[in-house]
Amino acid sequence: MGFDPVGRRDFLSGAGGLFICTLAGQKVFLDREADVSQLSSGVAAPPKVVEADGGDTGAPAAPDAVEADGAAAAAGTAQMEATDAGTRADTAPAAVDGVREYWIQAEPVRWNIVKPTGRDEMMNRKVRGKTKFTAFAYRAYEPNFTAPKGNAQIPGPLISAVVGDTVIVNFRNALPAPVTIHPHGIFYSDEMDGAYKGQYTDPGGFVQTGKTFRYQWEAREGTEGAWLYHDHGPLDPVPLFKGLFGPMVIRAQGEPLPDREFFVAFHTFSPVATGLAQNFSCINGRAFAGNTPTLRSSAGDTVRFHAFAIDNDFHTFHVHGHRWTDPNGGQVIDNQTLGPGDAITAEFVEDNPGRWFYHCHVFSHLHMGMNGWYLVDG
Amino acid sequence: MGFDPVGRRDFLSGAGGLFICTLAGQKVFLDREADVSQLSSGVAAPPKVVEADGGDTGAPAAPDAVEADGAAAAAGTAQMEATDAGTRADTAPAAVDGVREYWIQAEPVRWNIVKPTGRDEMMNRKVRGKTKFTAFAYRAYEPNFTAPKGNAQIPGPLISAVVGDTVIVNFRNALPAPVTIHPHGIFYSDEMDGAYKGQYTDPGGFVQTGKTFRYQWEAREGTEGAWLYHDHGPLDPVPLFKGLFGPMVIRAQGEPLPDREFFVAFHTFSPVATGLAQNFSCINGRAFAGNTPTLRSSAGDTVRFHAFAIDNDFHTFHVHGHRWTDPNGGQVIDNQTLGPGDAITAEFVEDNPGRWFYHCHVFSHLHMGMNGWYLVDG
Amino acid sequence: MGFDPVGRRDFLSGAGGLFICTLAGQKVFLDREADVSQLSSGVAAPPKVVEADGGDTGAPAAPDAVEADGAAAAAGTAQMEATDAGTRADTAPAAVDGVREYWIQAEPVRWNIVKPTGRDEMMNRKVRGKTKFTAFAYRAYEPNFTAPKGNAQIPGPLISAVVGDTVIVNFRNALPAPVTIHPHGIFYSDEMDGAYKGQYTDPGGFVQTGKTFRYQWEAREGTEGAWLYHDHGPLDPVPLFKGLFGPMVIRAQGEPLPDREFFVAFHTFSPVATGLAQNFSCINGRAFAGNTPTLRSSAGDTVRFHAFAIDNDFHTFHVHGHRWTDPNGGQVIDNQTLGPGDAITAEFVEDNPGRWFYHCHVFSHLHMGMNGWYLVDG
Repeated sequence: MGFDPVGRRDFLSGAGGLFICTLAGQKVFLDREADVSQLSSGVAAPPKVVEADGGDTGAPAAPDAVEADGAAAAAGTAQMEATDAGTRADTAPAAVDGVREYWIQAEPVRWNIVKPTGRDEMMNRKVRGKTKFTAFAYRAYEPNFTAPKGNAQIPGPLISAVVGDTVIVNFRNALPAPVTIHPHGIFYSDEMDGAYKGQYTDPGGFVQTGKTFRYQWEAREGTEGAWLYHDHGPLDPVPLFKGLFGPMVIRAQGEPLPDREFFVAFHTFSPVATGLAQNFSCINGRAFAGNTPTLRSSAGDTVRFHAFAIDNDFHTFHVHGHRWTDPNGGQVIDNQTLGPGDAITAEFVEDNPGRWFYHCHVFSHLHMGMNGWYLVDG
Repeated sequence: MGFDPVGRRDFLSGAGGLFICTLAGQKVFLDREADVSQLSSGVAAPPKVVEADGGDTGAPAAPDAVEADGAAAAAGTAQMEATDAGTRADTAPAAVDGVREYWIQAEPVRWNIVKPTGRDEMMNRKVRGKTKFTAFAYRAYEPNFTAPKGNAQIPGPLISAVVGDTVIVNFRNALPAPVTIHPHGIFYSDEMDGAYKGQYTDPGGFVQTGKTFRYQWEAREGTEGAWLYHDHGPLDPVPLFKGLFGPMVIRAQGEPLPDREFFVAFHTFSPVATGLAQNFSCINGRAFAGNTPTLRSSAGDTVRFHAFAIDNDFHTFHVHGHRWTDPNGGQVIDNQTLGPGDAITAEFVEDNPGRWFYHCHVFSHLHMGMNGWYLVDG
Repeated sequence: MGFDPVGRRDFLSGAGGLFICTLAGQKVFLDREADVSQLSSGVAAPPKVVEADGGDTGAPAAPDAVEADGAAAAAGTAQMEATDAGTRADTAPAAVDGVREYWIQAEPVRWNIVKPTGRDEMMNRKVRGKTKFTAFAYRAYEPNFTAPKGNAQIPGPLISAVVGDTVIVNFRNALPAPVTIHPHGIFYSDEMDGAYKGQYTDPGGFVQTGKTFRYQWEAREGTEGAWLYHDHGPLDPVPLFKGLFGPMVIRAQGEPLPDREFFVAFHTFSPVATGLAQNFSCINGRAFAGNTPTLRSSAGDTVRFHAFAIDNDFHTFHVHGHRWTDPNGGQVIDNQTLGPGDAITAEFVEDNPGRWFYHCHVFSHLHMGMNGWYLVDG
C-alpha cells in the first residue's frame, strides 16, 4: 500500500502490551517516557478554539515544576499529609445562590512516589531505584488564583456538590501542553465536556498553556454518586498517566455525611509518565504501604470508601477484616472488580479495631505498591 | 519426558501475552495470521458428524471473498450504513405459529476496518498502514437462501425473539473450515448448542464447508435480555476473531421497544485474524470514530445501548454526557466493566443534545480505535 | 541516584507482564520458577513472632512431597475424584457448643495438572509437555493431626460454618517456608488475619516450618456467602500460585442446602509456580475438560456454582445451556466477570439434561485449559 509498515511492537497493544497510541504523529509506548512538549508541538489548535481566541493561539511559556515534596518531612506529619490525600476532607466551597465555584490549575510538580517513608512497609524493605519525577497535578487555588490552597496533590482536589448546585470550575493550564478537565457523572452540555474531539473540539476541550477556561456543570437529580474527573485533551492519556485526575462527589440534598470518607484512586505510574525504570502500582500517587494514604477511623464510625480505577488495567478493591453489601444489597462482599473509569463505593459501620491492609487483589499490582494501611482505633 | 519442549513464547499466555492455543496440532499466536484452511485440514470430523452425514465428510470448495466494501461510498451514505450496523434495526421475521425462522450463512468478506473515512476522527488524523483483510461474517439471507439480505456485516444480523417463540436458524457454512453458531442466553438442548466438544461433538457443533444445519432454540420465560451468538467450532477462537459473532435480543411479551436501540460489540481485529501489521480495537468491526457506528437519537427518546465484549480483553463501556442506573437500580453509573462473553445494557431518556463519544475507557483500547460518535438532535 | 537500575523487564509489570514482585531481596518472574527455600532464607522472623516463640525461630526440616497422584487410577474412579474436588461435599465438622474445629496442614504434594486423562477433551488431543510438579496444598486432618483425611487436594478443604459459629483452624505448616491462612468474608481480629505485615506481623501472619497456629474466626451475622481463604505470608503470592488456597462457605441459620453445590476456583499454574515450560489455565488445580472437575446433577436439582478467581488475571464464568439471575435479581445472565479475590454465585433449578461445558470465556484461558464438563442426567 506504500505506507510505512507499522512496527512489530504494535502487535502487543491488543494483548495488554506496551504500545498505547499514536499521538500527534508519534507513537507512544508504556516503557518510554513521552515528551509532552514535543507531542504538543505536533497538535494544531482546532477551528473553534482558534475562533474563540480571536486567532491568538500563542501560548506563554509553562512554569517550572515546583519542588513540592522538597525536604523530608517528619514521618508523622508526612503521614498526616498522606492521610489527607486519602480522606480528601470535604472542603467544598459553600454554595452561593446555588453555585459552587472552584479555581483549579493544572501544573507540574516534582513528585516522589514513595514519600514519605521510601519503604515498602508490607514487605519491610527499602524501595530501590529512582522514584521522583515531574508529575502533572490539578491544584486548588483561592478565588481568582490569588494563591494556591496548599501543595499540589495527586489526585487533584475533591469537587463536591449537592443536587441542585451549579458547579463552576475556573481552570487554568500551567502545563506545557493543552489539557482539559473532563468530568464523569455530573450533567454538562457538550461544549463543557472537556473532551478533545478532533475538528469538532470546543474550546473547553483544548485549553492551551497559560489560558483559562470556565467549565459550568450541573449537579442535577440523578447524578448522585462518586465520580472521576480527568484530562481528556489532545495528548490523552499521557497527562492523565502523569497524574491529571481527581475525585468528585455529588450528594443528595440532606444526605448525612459518613464519619469517615475515603477517595482512593488505583492507577499506575509507568515509564511513559515518569521516565523511571520501573512501574509503580499506586494509590493516590504513592506506592507501597507507608506512602499510600494511611487511612484512619474509630470503632462505631460510619465509613465510606470510594475506589476508582484510572489506567489501562483492571483492579479489585479489597479491605482486610471488613465486608459490605453491594450497592443493591443482594450480596455481602469484601472484594470488588473495577475497570478504567469505574467508581465503586464500599460502606460499613466500623466494628473491627486494628491494623489492616486495603489493597488491590491483583497480586502483581499488590506487590508493585497498590496497598495501604487502614488503622482503626478501639 | 521425551516431549518436544513447549516454546518459550508460551510463557506469555497466562500473562496476557501472545500465545492463544494449540489448534489441530498447530500453535496459534495473536501476532501471526492463522491459516484457517491449513488448521482445518488437521481436524477430523467427530463420530456423530460422520454418522449423520452417512460417512460423507467431503466438503465442497469454499467461495471466494466478496468485495463487499468495493468502491468508496459517499461519506453520508456510508455513515448511514455504519449507523445501521450499530442500530441493528429490529427486522426480525414475523413469528409464524410461534416460530421465527432465520437463514444465515457464514461467508468470507473483504473488510476495511476503517471504512468509510480512513480516518481517526477523535485524533483528526489519517489511519496509516493496511486496513483491509478477508474477514468472516454471518450474513442474513431470504428464505431458502434464495438471495442475501444486503451486504455481509460484522457483527452478524440481529436475532430477535419474544418470549414464547421458537427460533429456527438455518445455518449454511460457506467458509473453508467447519464453523458453528453457539447462542448465549436462549434455551437450547445440548445437540443445539453449536459447540465443538471433541469426540462428543453433535452435528451442530461441526458444520462443514458447504453444509447446512438447522438450529432450533426456544425463547423461554427467563431468557429475556441481550445476548451474543458466535462460532464455537473446532477452530474457535480464530473464526470468531475474524468476525463470526452477532447480537441477539429476547424481549418479554408486550415489552415496549425503546425509541433507539444500539447493539455495540467491543472486540479486537488482531494479526491472528487479519494478517495486518497492527491491532485494531473495534466496535462492530470498525475502528476509530467516523468508522465505528455513528449513533443518532433525539432529545426525549428512550435510548438503550447493549454492549458486548467478545475477545480476550476486558473493557469498560462509557458514554459522555449521559448516565444510567445499574440493572438493579442501586447506583447511578456512566461507566461499566464487561468481560468476554458479557452483555450489559444501559438505558436512559435522552436529555442532552450534542456531539458525544461513546468508548471503551481502557486508554490503550480507546486510542487503538474503540470509540465512536453519538449524535443527539435538540 | 547511585542505586542499581531496575531491570528492563520490570517495565512489563504494569502491562500484564512477567515481573511479579521483589521478595526477600530477589525478583520474582512469572516465567521462572521461584525457589521457595532460597526466598525463605532471606526473610527474618518479625518481632512479635520471635517474642511469641520465646526467641526460638529455628524451623524443623520440611517433609518431602508425597506422591499423591502416584499410580494412574482407573478413569472412572479418577473422574469421581475430580468430581469430588469440584463438588466439595460439605463435610464440615459438627458444631460443638457453637465451635467448628478444623485441622489443616500446608504440605507439598506431587501434582499432575492433567490427571487423570492427560488429554484436552474439548479439543480431543493429548496434552504435550511435562505436567507434574511439586505443588503446595492445604490438607484436612483428623483432630490433633493424628491422620490425614484423604489426599491433599487443590483447592484445600471446604471450610463451612453457620452464622453464629466460631471457626477454629489448627494450622500446621509442613512447607519449607513460612505460610499462613488468610480468610475472606468471615469476621476475625487483626491478630487472626493471617497476613504478613512487615514489622507489624502477628504470629498468625508468619507460621514457620513445623509450627502450628490456632486461628479463631467468627461467622457473625452479615458474613454469609462463599469466600476464599489463601496464603498471605511473606512469600505471597508464590505459595498461593503453587496451590495454597481453598473455599469457605458461611450459611444463614436454617438455610436449605441446594441439591448440588460446586466450588470452582479459576487460577493459573504458571512457570513461577511449576517450573514447567508452559502456562496452564486451571480450575481447581487441573487443566482441560476431563481433568478439571466433571460436575454432575440431575433435572430438577437445585444447583449452585460458586466461582472464584485467584491469580493475576480476570476471568468470566460461563455455563452452556444455563442462565441465572444476578444476585440482585435485576438481570438474567449466563456469563459473569470476576477478578482476583472475587467470588460469584450462580444458582438455578436444573432443567436441561445433557453434556455441557462450564468455562472461562476469555478465549486464551479457555484454550489453555480453563474448561470442564457439566453432565446433567435426564
